[in-house]
Amino acid sequence: MIELKVELGERSYPIWIGTGLLNQPGVFDPFLGQADVMIVTDDVVGPLYLETFKAAIGEGSRRVESVVLPEGEAHKTMATLGQVLDRLIEQRYARDSVLVTLGGGVVGDIGGFAAATYQRGIRFIQVPTTLLAQVDSSVGGKTGVNHPRGKNMIGAFHQPMAVIMDMATLETLPDRELSAGLAEVVKYGLICDAEFFTWLEAHADDLVGRDPEALQYAIRRSCEVKAGIVAADELERGRRALLNLGHTYGHAIEHCIGYGEWLHGEAVAAGMCMAVEFSVQLGQAAPAELERTRALLARLNLPVKPPKITTDAFRAAMSIDKKVIAGEIRLVLLRGIGAAYVTSDYPSDEMVRLLDQQLGH
Amino acid sequence: MIELKVELGERSYPIWIGTGLLNQPGVFDPFLGQADVMIVTDDVVGPLYLETFKAAIGEGSRRVESVVLPEGEAHKTMATLGQVLDRLIEQRYARDSVLVTLGGGVVGDIGGFAAATYQRGIRFIQVPTTLLAQVDSSVGGKTGVNHPRGKNMIGAFHQPMAVIMDMATLETLPDRELSAGLAEVVKYGLICDAEFFTWLEAHADDLVGRDPEALQYAIRRSCEVKAGIVAADELERGRRALLNLGHTYGHAIEHCIGYGEWLHGEAVAAGMCMAVEFSVQLGQAAPAELERTRALLARLNLPVKPPKITTDAFRAAMSIDKKVIAGEIRLVLLRGIGAAYVTSDYPSDEMVRLLDQQLGH
Repeated sequence: MIELKVELGERSYPIWIGTGLLNQPGVFDPFLGQADVMIVTDDVVGPLYLETFKAAIGEGSRRVESVVLPEGEAHKTMATLGQVLDRLIEQRYARDSVLVTLGGGVVGDIGGFAAATYQRGIRFIQVPTTLLAQVDSSVGGKTGVNHPRGKNMIGAFHQPMAVIMDMATLETLPDRELSAGLAEVVKYGLICDAEFFTWLEAHADDLVGRDPEALQYAIRRSCEVKAGIVAADELERGRRALLNLGHTYGHAIEHCIGYGEWLHGEAVAAGMCMAVEFSVQLGQAAPAELERTRALLARLNLPVKPPKITTDAFRAAMSIDKKVIAGEIRLVLLRGIGAAYVTSDYPSDEMVRLLDQQLGH
Repeated sequence: MIELKVELGERSYPIWIGTGLLNQPGVFDPFLGQADVMIVTDDVVGPLYLETFKAAIGEGSRRVESVVLPEGEAHKTMATLGQVLDRLIEQRYARDSVLVTLGGGVVGDIGGFAAATYQRGIRFIQVPTTLLAQVDSSVGGKTGVNHPRGKNMIGAFHQPMAVIMDMATLETLPDRELSAGLAEVVKYGLICDAEFFTWLEAHADDLVGRDPEALQYAIRRSCEVKAGIVAADELERGRRALLNLGHTYGHAIEHCIGYGEWLHGEAVAAGMCMAVEFSVQLGQAAPAELERTRALLARLNLPVKPPKITTDAFRAAMSIDKKVIAGEIRLVLLRGIGAAYVTSDYPSDEMVRLLDQQLGH
C-alpha cells in the first residue's frame, strides 16, 4: 500500500492507494474509532461493494447505515443532497459521526457536501471507486452540487479525514469511465509535469489495457501533483485554478448538451484540446504540442473535439462558470506542455473567432 | 462609533456599533471595493431600510441587487435558501461578489449560509437590525437553516468580513423582539460575567425603556464576550458550547410548539430558567440565583416557564438537538451566576423527573 499526504496543517490527511482495502477488516478502524458510520453510495456501486464493505468495517460491532443514491451527474442536485441529510437526521446521527462516500465523483461531491453542512460539518472519508474520483475529485476537499444553470455552483470546501482507494474497484469500471479518468491524469502532465506527460505517451496502451502497475503509477503521480497544488492553495485563490485546465470549456460542453450525456472526463478532454489550441493561436504553445495532446487523448479513447453547439449558447454557458471574475472569463492556457498559467488577459475576440471554428460553424 | 474585533487569524473581522450607519454614504466602502453587492433582507425589514441603504452604499455607481425573503423562523428552510442561491445564479454574480444580510437572525443565518455555499463560498457582511441578531447571531460565523426535524441542522461555519450594526434600527423593533434579544444578553452574564449580570439587574428598566446608553453598553459587552469565546473556539469543539445555555431546552420548546410561535429569545429565556433550576437541584447553583435569574428575565418581559408540552415530546425534541454526542444530551449548567460549564455527566433520571415538574405534569 502507498501512503501520500495532503499537507493542510490541522486539516492534513492521508491518501492510501492499495488493492483489496475495501474487504479487509480493520483498515478503516484508525479513522472510525467508536463513531457511527453513514455510507453514501449509488445504485451502481452499492450492489457491487456495499455489503462486503459494511462487513469489513464491522457492521454489528458498530452502527453502520447507508443511503443509496440514483447514479449519475443528472442527480447531483440539491434534491439528492436532501436525501442524504434527511437520512442523517431521521437516523439521529450525532455531530461526532463519520460519513463515508463509496463511489465516483458524484457520490463524493454530494456526500462530501452533506458532511460539510450536516450540523455545520461532520467528518468524512472519501472512498473513490472510479479512476476519475481517485485521481481528482476525492482529493482536495471540493464538494457540492449542480444548479440547473451551472455546474458545482453550490458547495463547500470541506476536507476529508482520509482518502482510501482500492484499485480492485477499477476491475468493474466500464472502459468508457476508465478513459474519462485518464483525461484528468493527462491534465496533470499538461499543467506542470512534462516528464509525466511523456511517460503517459509511452504507457497509453498499458493504461487502456488496465495494466495494474501502470495504473497505480498514474494514480500515484496524479495524487502527488494534486496534493501539492491543494496544499499550496486550499481555497483556490491562486495556483489551484491551474487544475481547471479544460474545465471552463468542458463545463460549457456539459451544460449545453445536458449533464450526463458526455462523461465529465470526456468533456474535459475536448475542453483541454480547445484550450491548448487557443494557446497555440496566441503563439504560446507550439503546434506540435497540440498534436501530441490530441494524439495522446485519442489513444486513450477520448474525444478531442466538442459536440455540435452554437457559439452563442457555448459562450453563455462559459460566462456563468465559477471562474468568472468581475465579468471576465479566466482561462487556463499553456506556455507549453507542463507549463500552464491562469489568465483573464487575452484577446477575447480571438477566442470567440476560434470558438466559431472549434464548434464547426 | 465603537469598534470591536473578532480575532480569528486571517479570518479576523471588525464589529462596528454606531448610530445612523445605514444611511451614511461611504461607511461600507472599505469592505465593498468594486464588488457587486447582493442584499438579502425580509419583507418586514426591507420596506423600512432597503432603499436608503442601497442609496448609501452607492447603487448606481456599483451593481446592487436584492432578494426579499418572507419574514420569520418558519421560513428558515432549504427552500428559502434556494431562493437566494437562484437569485445569485440568475444574476450571474461572480465569486468576488459580496452578499449583505440586512435583517434579524433568520436573514443572517440564511443569507450567511447562501454566502457559505454559493460557488463554495463568497464574502459577506452581517448588518443585524434586531437586538437578538446584534448581540448574538451576527457574530461568530454560524449560518444555516432548519430541518423539519430539528433547528439549525443544516449549515456551515462561515465568518463574515464585517458585522455592522446601526442602533437606529432598534427604534422600529417591536417591544417583544427587544425583550427576546435581551434574553441572549442575560445569557452572557449567566455564562461568565457575574458583574455584567448585576449591571443588568440595575439597568433592567432602562433597557426595556430603550435608553440608548444602556442599550449600547449591553450590546457592546455582549459582543465582547461573544467575540472572546468565538476567538478561543471557532468551531465549537469546547468552550463555545457555553453559548448554548438554555438552548437545548429552548430548541425543544420551539420544536414542540412549532417554530415562530415563541420567539427564539423567549424560548431561550424559559430554557435558561429550566437549566438553572436543574443546576440548583444538583446542588451546584444556589436557589437564590435561580430566583435572581427568573426575576431579571421577568422584568425584561420574558417567559420564565415553558408552555404546555408532554414530557415525552419534549425529551424526543431534546434528543435530536445538535448538542447530542454519542447518544448523550450535553447540557450547559451553572455552578453559579457567571460560572457555566458543559456536561453530559448528570443523573438523567433526575433531569427527567424535574422535567415532569417543569412542564407541569
